[in-house]
Amino acid sequence: MTAGAPPAIGNLDYGARFGFDVLHRDPASRARVGRLRTPHGTIETPNFIFCATKASIKGVSPQQMREARTDIILSNTYHLMIQPGADVVAALGGLHRFMGWDGPMLTDSGGFQIFSMGHGSVADEIKGRRSQPRERTLTRVSEKGAEFRSYLDGSKLFLSPETSIDIQRKLGADLVVQLDECTPFHVDRDYTARSMALSHRWGDRSLAEFARGGGMSANGEPQALYGIIQGGVYPDLRRESAEYTRGRPFFGTAVGGSLGASKEQMYEVVAMCMPYVHPDRPVHLLGIGGIADVFAGVRLGIDTFDCVSPTRIARHGWALAPGAPGERLNLRNARFRSDPGPVEPGCDCATCRTWSRGYLHHLLRAGELLGPTLISIHNVAVMNRLMRDVRAALADGTLDALEARWVAA
Amino acid sequence: MTAGAPPAIGNLDYGARFGFDVLHRDPASRARVGRLRTPHGTIETPNFIFCATKASIKGVSPQQMREARTDIILSNTYHLMIQPGADVVAALGGLHRFMGWDGPMLTDSGGFQIFSMGHGSVADEIKGRRSQPRERTLTRVSEKGAEFRSYLDGSKLFLSPETSIDIQRKLGADLVVQLDECTPFHVDRDYTARSMALSHRWGDRSLAEFARGGGMSANGEPQALYGIIQGGVYPDLRRESAEYTRGRPFFGTAVGGSLGASKEQMYEVVAMCMPYVHPDRPVHLLGIGGIADVFAGVRLGIDTFDCVSPTRIARHGWALAPGAPGERLNLRNARFRSDPGPVEPGCDCATCRTWSRGYLHHLLRAGELLGPTLISIHNVAVMNRLMRDVRAALADGTLDALEARWVAA
Repeated sequence: MTAGAPPAIGNLDYGARFGFDVLHRDPASRARVGRLRTPHGTIETPNFIFCATKASIKGVSPQQMREARTDIILSNTYHLMIQPGADVVAALGGLHRFMGWDGPMLTDSGGFQIFSMGHGSVADEIKGRRSQPRERTLTRVSEKGAEFRSYLDGSKLFLSPETSIDIQRKLGADLVVQLDECTPFHVDRDYTARSMALSHRWGDRSLAEFARGGGMSANGEPQALYGIIQGGVYPDLRRESAEYTRGRPFFGTAVGGSLGASKEQMYEVVAMCMPYVHPDRPVHLLGIGGIADVFAGVRLGIDTFDCVSPTRIARHGWALAPGAPGERLNLRNARFRSDPGPVEPGCDCATCRTWSRGYLHHLLRAGELLGPTLISIHNVAVMNRLMRDVRAALADGTLDALEARWVAA
Repeated sequence: MTAGAPPAIGNLDYGARFGFDVLHRDPASRARVGRLRTPHGTIETPNFIFCATKASIKGVSPQQMREARTDIILSNTYHLMIQPGADVVAALGGLHRFMGWDGPMLTDSGGFQIFSMGHGSVADEIKGRRSQPRERTLTRVSEKGAEFRSYLDGSKLFLSPETSIDIQRKLGADLVVQLDECTPFHVDRDYTARSMALSHRWGDRSLAEFARGGGMSANGEPQALYGIIQGGVYPDLRRESAEYTRGRPFFGTAVGGSLGASKEQMYEVVAMCMPYVHPDRPVHLLGIGGIADVFAGVRLGIDTFDCVSPTRIARHGWALAPGAPGERLNLRNARFRSDPGPVEPGCDCATCRTWSRGYLHHLLRAGELLGPTLISIHNVAVMNRLMRDVRAALADGTLDALEARWVAA
């Protein structure tokens, strides 16, 4: 049992409202069970952070998210700075009040979307999808920050470490993240090293701006800042970047940047970082969260995950089905037309308790709005059950057996 | 106080599971307060029936409908016979179980959609919208029934009084409706008279088929049949049709067909029918349900209304706002961008208790699925509050004062 001593930033002390305690360590891996305390509640880790990209989980109300046993969600600075704008969110009371979510929240820095949309390929590379041409919206990166065009109307926008912190202060999430440059994975070592150094300088500027604002949101609530580890696929750079975050007074550590060209390389890259992160701080893995990924990440020491996948695949008719090939069922498939069974036998989510596969199939075929909503509720409930199961298995030392049940051979 | 004696059909007696009692009559009009009993619950009247066209209230779960204090919903035979098909619904336990709604339900006969899509104009005329050219899908009407093409794949389909009852038996709603021919309003008196006579013969065949099936759904639950009054805009035909329904052992009476070219003519047409309907049976006005319409209809003696409007306008960003011009607010309007107030001050619906106009404006502008859902919840709650207010005002003799509060001058 190790209680993490929250670092001080200047005269700031995260410990007043934030904390991270490691309750149990897995003897067979870096996995650990923890407790992350925020002003909007305490969550147990490992845990999953669901994406309310534009201050809304697509089609699912906060009450339905709670019923599916969700602990924590995130929103994206990039999308919200463009629409409705951070000042509007602040005027309407900050993200929690704006969207009616009273639990813990995280916002990212905006960097990932600027650079992935800008380069047109980072997201696809990180997620292992084939790269497709997209419009490039990133116009200029300098020491000062990144200049890019609005996805909405093409207008010029600028994000620096300072403006990212300022926007996240107005949004008012509990956990906020420093701005970084997110490079494509195919760039060479020199480019990656120079980019990493820039991200480190941006990290220091983020810390300074965060301290300048007293670590408080525009609505006067305390926030806690995560640093980001960059360094591409290069072990020495990843180590250097992890040690950078370790040496600075961040509250938490995020593993970001290009995680390689495949799932195997992604696990390798995470493994390069973990021996060098601050051992008493929560570690978040940015943008990764398949069922198999969660088991791999937890063993490597990851405390929190986020991914749009559970709700995005629901909108295309895919329901998470632990143990099934690909971990999912396509409910649009004709074989479900008259199927009276629940999506997942034994699942106690609202969807499985009430509706048949046949009904969900009908909603999808009829183009009814309720279809994506009900499947999203199931998928969210599955991810939350997975995380509860993982925490219990870590405490019991039965993670291998649990993985065998959840992941198809 | 008058207790309606439920009519017997052959050896059937609706009274075992169905009933309609008039609890109070307004001395100043034909308005009345009643209680309508079904196997899935008892509702007070006047009341509003919400449209779950394809076995789903678009974007709103049954639980959310209940929280908005909904008593009764309907589904459309026409849409469900095409997708997923009545046999699929029956195999999955009937509509109540299929869609997870355990309260009273009505299905229509399919006639309105066949004929309105077929003639390409009836719906627009009845609703007072400008007629626009649409594809004609009605291919042939004969004594036997109506032949039409599927909106989904163009395949040929056929609906007769008998097949409509058979399909509604498989769907398994509490309240079912006879097949009728729904004519455009501009047809002449002779055409209207011949069509009305056909609908009456179809009414008798519907009663015979209903009795042949023992008045029971495919899942063994009792159902109750409504007859429909036709006769276009012709007072003598409306009287003749009302007297037809009164003389037959229907459980309830529906006012259908062309209701004229304007709201004023619609009220006149309803007024032509009401002196001649069976006084002890519930009267439903098909497809009408604006706030002003409800007051007019209630005074004319209507017990239940249905209309897609509350949820349809929500999908376009319109929130019902009693007393506002046009009875609604367009939440897409830029003036709501930073508005911290609820849609309707004082409204106790889940949407008004939790979210600001500014947040709903953002959801609409961002194209988020949750926008139509949250506005639909408000609109449904408003209609349910309207009906509660109307019932209370009728009991108190304060309907005029209530109308002045709800309807803009």
